[in-house]
Amino acid sequence: MKFEINVLGCGSAKPSPVHNPSCTVVNFRDNLFMIDCGEGAQKELQRQRLKIPRLNHIFLTHLHGDHVFGLPGLLGTMALSGLEGDITIHTFEDGKRILSSIFDYFNRGLPIDVKFNVIRPEEAVVFENASLRVRTVPLRHKIPAVGYIFEEKQGQRHIDRAMCDFHEVPVWAFNKIKAGEDFIKPDGTVIPNAMMTKDPTPTRSYAHISDTSYMPELASKIEGVDLLFHETTYLSQDSDKAKERGHSTAAEAAKVALEANAGLLLTGHYSSRYKDDNLFLEEAREVFPNVILGKEGLRLSL
Amino acid sequence: MKFEINVLGCGSAKPSPVHNPSCTVVNFRDNLFMIDCGEGAQKELQRQRLKIPRLNHIFLTHLHGDHVFGLPGLLGTMALSGLEGDITIHTFEDGKRILSSIFDYFNRGLPIDVKFNVIRPEEAVVFENASLRVRTVPLRHKIPAVGYIFEEKQGQRHIDRAMCDFHEVPVWAFNKIKAGEDFIKPDGTVIPNAMMTKDPTPTRSYAHISDTSYMPELASKIEGVDLLFHETTYLSQDSDKAKERGHSTAAEAAKVALEANAGLLLTGHYSSRYKDDNLFLEEAREVFPNVILGKEGLRLSL
Repeated sequence: MKFEINVLGCGSAKPSPVHNPSCTVVNFRDNLFMIDCGEGAQKELQRQRLKIPRLNHIFLTHLHGDHVFGLPGLLGTMALSGLEGDITIHTFEDGKRILSSIFDYFNRGLPIDVKFNVIRPEEAVVFENASLRVRTVPLRHKIPAVGYIFEEKQGQRHIDRAMCDFHEVPVWAFNKIKAGEDFIKPDGTVIPNAMMTKDPTPTRSYAHISDTSYMPELASKIEGVDLLFHETTYLSQDSDKAKERGHSTAAEAAKVALEANAGLLLTGHYSSRYKDDNLFLEEAREVFPNVILGKEGLRLSL
Repeated sequence: MKFEINVLGCGSAKPSPVHNPSCTVVNFRDNLFMIDCGEGAQKELQRQRLKIPRLNHIFLTHLHGDHVFGLPGLLGTMALSGLEGDITIHTFEDGKRILSSIFDYFNRGLPIDVKFNVIRPEEAVVFENASLRVRTVPLRHKIPAVGYIFEEKQGQRHIDRAMCDFHEVPVWAFNKIKAGEDFIKPDGTVIPNAMMTKDPTPTRSYAHISDTSYMPELASKIEGVDLLFHETTYLSQDSDKAKERGHSTAAEAAKVALEANAGLLLTGHYSSRYKDDNLFLEEAREVFPNVILGKEGLRLSL
């Protein structure tokens, strides 16, 4: 089932003619979850044919303009387009305050009700439904910031139809068997669950880590993640600037991917000082082999 | 001397994959004056190679999001880039209040001092220097709105060098003669100014009228304007929607251009419901012949 990561913006604070500021959309079973909403996000949603009515949750990592300034326009468009369902913004108390005042003014009289889920810069589960869990990890930036980890929940076991037929297990019992129960036949014979089922589809996970300095303690919190987006604002040649400004180099991002045994590393949040994005890719690949260079329009399927 | 109109955004409230929301930049003698600042304006400035440090005045027509939501990002970039000189935003009291609160939060600690010139929806001169005057005209929209008229001031008369030499007028007297004075020779002979000078270069003017319903009384206020931008949100087939929403049709914009004896009409603020912008051009040209279809990247020199 669908679990896709769409890159809508992988630039950083200073604008670049080729990159949008931060925005990523997770498509999980055709429900869209946006992470950060830099200026131009709504236009990029259109370009990438991501359907706004399917977007009900927006997760903000922190309150710097390049992660936020696309929100008023997006919410205005949602209001004008007739939103289906709720829209919830996950952000800090400050974000709720400042964003509410903007929406209250510019969306007055429009049919939209923006909900806020106030989060804090700590480890917590901030969203959960039957198949997905989203949790935060605090990051190390100049202002409070969190990363988000999207984890697919373990599904039910799969029925092994041939074995069930062989043991004469009736169809009405399948739901409980999928949930892990054994089956007791009318004559008292117990058929162990493992004989009637196969393992559930492996779960998949995505970690979105932006903006942050290199955090040695991060790897253990995202151990084994399938896809890690980790900001690569700078190259190692500017590691002093990265430290000073609360950002990471491509090599540091790759180090986290290596330490966390990530499946794949996705780069982004590029400083506009570099003219060739491939430098991020090259630097990261020297540390960790499985790197994909983030760019607008990229869609990765987990 | 340079007097150029640059179109940065000619879409309207609902985003379109081909148009940006409202933004126009007037380049008057290499000083940039922005009118409205829709989302994406700063990226479009970059694309069109308009130099942000030369921008010191932003005029807002009204406080709808599609005319305003590019401001926080643009101001943030200005702050990060090290602004030269002041930046003044001309807007209503409400705009000062809501925009200040956004800038105060997101630009805290950054070296930028945003000034506000509070305007009202009435006729007034809102900016003036030695060579340019900008005045407002109130428009008829769903919320208070003004249009802006940029008027080059009358320059000095030109010296007719041959005639001055013939009348033995000394060079030291030229400055006063340019300003319109006669010259009195040592023997008391008066040389009338008209004999020594030619008329000054004709002044040029630009009127920016957005957003508004058709206003019959507008023409007299912009009589003889060289270039008229008048919003053309709708086609006549949707004139009921135009009325209801405080907008104009292409035919109505052309009617204003005709009544005002405008030199040229520039269209824009297109509703995203129409798939072919040429329809605006065709409809307007039936009423007024000199129409240019506005599009992003267009630069008109007056």
